[in-house]
Amino acid sequence: MRINLLLTGHELMTGDTLDSNSAMIAQLCFDQGIQVAVKSTIPDDMSLIISEMERLSQSAEVLIVNGGLGPTSDDMTAEALAKVVKRPLAVHPAAMAHLQAWSVKRNYPLSEANNKQAFLPEDIDLIANESGSAVGFKIKHNNCLIICTPGVPHELKTMLVKEILPELSTMLPDNIQPKRVRYRIFGYGESNLQQAIYEQFPDWPEKIELGFRASMPLLELKLKVDRKEDHDLLDVWKIKIEQLLGAHIVTQDDRSLAEVVVNLLADRKLKVTCAESCTGGKIASMLTEVSGSSAVFEAGFVTYANHIKTSVVGVSEESLSTHGAVSESVVQQMLEGALNASGANIGVAVSGIAGPSGGTDEKPVGTVWLAWGSKEKMLSHQFYFPGNRLFFLKIVSALALDLLRRELLYLDEEADYFQKRRFRSKS
Amino acid sequence: MRINLLLTGHELMTGDTLDSNSAMIAQLCFDQGIQVAVKSTIPDDMSLIISEMERLSQSAEVLIVNGGLGPTSDDMTAEALAKVVKRPLAVHPAAMAHLQAWSVKRNYPLSEANNKQAFLPEDIDLIANESGSAVGFKIKHNNCLIICTPGVPHELKTMLVKEILPELSTMLPDNIQPKRVRYRIFGYGESNLQQAIYEQFPDWPEKIELGFRASMPLLELKLKVDRKEDHDLLDVWKIKIEQLLGAHIVTQDDRSLAEVVVNLLADRKLKVTCAESCTGGKIASMLTEVSGSSAVFEAGFVTYANHIKTSVVGVSEESLSTHGAVSESVVQQMLEGALNASGANIGVAVSGIAGPSGGTDEKPVGTVWLAWGSKEKMLSHQFYFPGNRLFFLKIVSALALDLLRRELLYLDEEADYFQKRRFRSKS
Repeated sequence: MRINLLLTGHELMTGDTLDSNSAMIAQLCFDQGIQVAVKSTIPDDMSLIISEMERLSQSAEVLIVNGGLGPTSDDMTAEALAKVVKRPLAVHPAAMAHLQAWSVKRNYPLSEANNKQAFLPEDIDLIANESGSAVGFKIKHNNCLIICTPGVPHELKTMLVKEILPELSTMLPDNIQPKRVRYRIFGYGESNLQQAIYEQFPDWPEKIELGFRASMPLLELKLKVDRKEDHDLLDVWKIKIEQLLGAHIVTQDDRSLAEVVVNLLADRKLKVTCAESCTGGKIASMLTEVSGSSAVFEAGFVTYANHIKTSVVGVSEESLSTHGAVSESVVQQMLEGALNASGANIGVAVSGIAGPSGGTDEKPVGTVWLAWGSKEKMLSHQFYFPGNRLFFLKIVSALALDLLRRELLYLDEEADYFQKRRFRSKS
Repeated sequence: MRINLLLTGHELMTGDTLDSNSAMIAQLCFDQGIQVAVKSTIPDDMSLIISEMERLSQSAEVLIVNGGLGPTSDDMTAEALAKVVKRPLAVHPAAMAHLQAWSVKRNYPLSEANNKQAFLPEDIDLIANESGSAVGFKIKHNNCLIICTPGVPHELKTMLVKEILPELSTMLPDNIQPKRVRYRIFGYGESNLQQAIYEQFPDWPEKIELGFRASMPLLELKLKVDRKEDHDLLDVWKIKIEQLLGAHIVTQDDRSLAEVVVNLLADRKLKVTCAESCTGGKIASMLTEVSGSSAVFEAGFVTYANHIKTSVVGVSEESLSTHGAVSESVVQQMLEGALNASGANIGVAVSGIAGPSGGTDEKPVGTVWLAWGSKEKMLSHQFYFPGNRLFFLKIVSALALDLLRRELLYLDEEADYFQKRRFRSKS
């Protein structure tokens, strides 16, 4: 089945708004086994909208139009469609009823402009909009189903998931029944994951499509088949992928790395703390962004300056002067001090050189020491992530959470992060 | 002048990659007074690329093609263009020399696949690529200049700024000389800023285009004229806008709010600290993301649990039990404790209810107390930002930085944040 997209809006042409709607539509369709063929983006210009609706409906079975359903004079989709399908515009009673119910619910009087949203091509089929004033609508034109959808992303998403995709899937041939598996992975970059899979599985079956998506600091891997007859094949190769990636797989759902860690801590009724130098509060911030984190997180310490490492978490001045702030003994003492001061069971401490300045020959920018674990079992390791400051802060904060995750899962083997490419062995 | 865009690539059709290149092209063109007319996005499909090149070159003076210049079999732009302009493909000596120099510089042997990047329509004009292997190229077809550009964003950007835009601006009529002013603003949402401007200036001149762009937590406002004769008009209205927005203007350059605060602190040789409850380390993290922040930031305290507020920053148990953790006296004591423990000159303390749970009738989710300033001059205020947890954390952390910024600028009047809509008066 061929789908075309038509996106309308002045703001999409100036570059001020990044178009995320078309990616959302494409992704949701793709997961259903439907690929978008052509995408056209145009400003709010009546004759252009009309000619693009005509053109794009000639080469596809479905044309999804996005945007232009609002109340202002810029919103022209209904009027353009009326001209394309040669029907008059008229008040649509069900659309008007939806508008009125929406305005009552929000205690918001309907303006003349709002009423315009019920002026649609006569007798057109509506598509429900749960959360906004603009209903969607659809009509067959020649051999193409034209579907008009709202530009507000969450309204569009609900409409796609609840109304449009179920209808499209009935239009697919019987043997099209997509199945997919998604993994969120830490410790691989996109190119080294791709390489690892192709090296390990030179016989990777063509029928299983692999998709990679960077979702920093995690990487998303998707396996997908479109046909029912290939579901069993997917199940076989899914297991091989899981064996290859092992504990690099953080989750198969939508949770963030911090959410997974907070959930593990909550399950085991443990409290966590952190002592951060270079990451400057980012680890604490990632943990506390998770709702419910107060059950597992009570205190964090941002010990940026050396004298604070001493006064707040009790690092000895001697260690600082002998080994420097970026050293094994300092991160171990930072962790011990944070565990003592917070009363937490488990924690992580970080000290490194984020750059751009501060590096030396012995400890270049990108060098970082981490200590993690409990007072009974404390681990530490040096890593090396050259790159820019923000990249370094993101990857090191995520690494700290991942080391906690592995510890909470009782994984004892040493993680092979980024296939050791960015890895410095223990001093 | 009319410009069309053609974007090619399988990854743009599955939704796995968000298309940011077309927004970059549109924005840079727009600032030069050139508006993109139509944008078409298609997969790597030879006949489709050829027909879209033909179609889009018929309705514009310039067609920018993006993507498809790489070494793999998916990369078809040169071959498609050769068919459109009816020239044979041939090794382009200058393109080959560029490839060889690029490979020597990177100590990376050229593969057969790489050599493909020098096979271009015969005698075509090249466009230099400073940082990648793929040169750009351009050719006049009928009345349209077709410009082919690489998909790698930083290569594209350099090529646009250094090569393409200067050429396009020579094609503009003489009186087109765009001038623009940008402001980064805190304390206004997009709709209330728009409303404030139109209410204050009902006679806003049509010739000055207003652009708004959310860049959370800041809002970017752009004023723009396209003609030289309107430059003076812009200068007049620029002053009116600055009077209206006053200290809500954080900066006229690209700095973040945290960068502005760090720069102000460094100028005055002051050190800052923070004691964070609900924001959980986000304020410290924003400050320490700025390179050079170690000169002004030494310590931060994430005092999430009540007993930590007592043990780490010395909040009295009595205040906690009498007034609760979200109260004026608690944030004041948190700030005082953080100033004492860190030795900093100035600081901020935050305690609030980020939700989704933890709210009460008296202190609903979204309630937050902030204290800021020095031991000599400590200020505090209650605010209210209902909304989801992540929104609350972002806006409150930015508010904390903005209150510091205003204090560092000796601004004594009370800020009218978000036109008091989200504002709760002092207890």
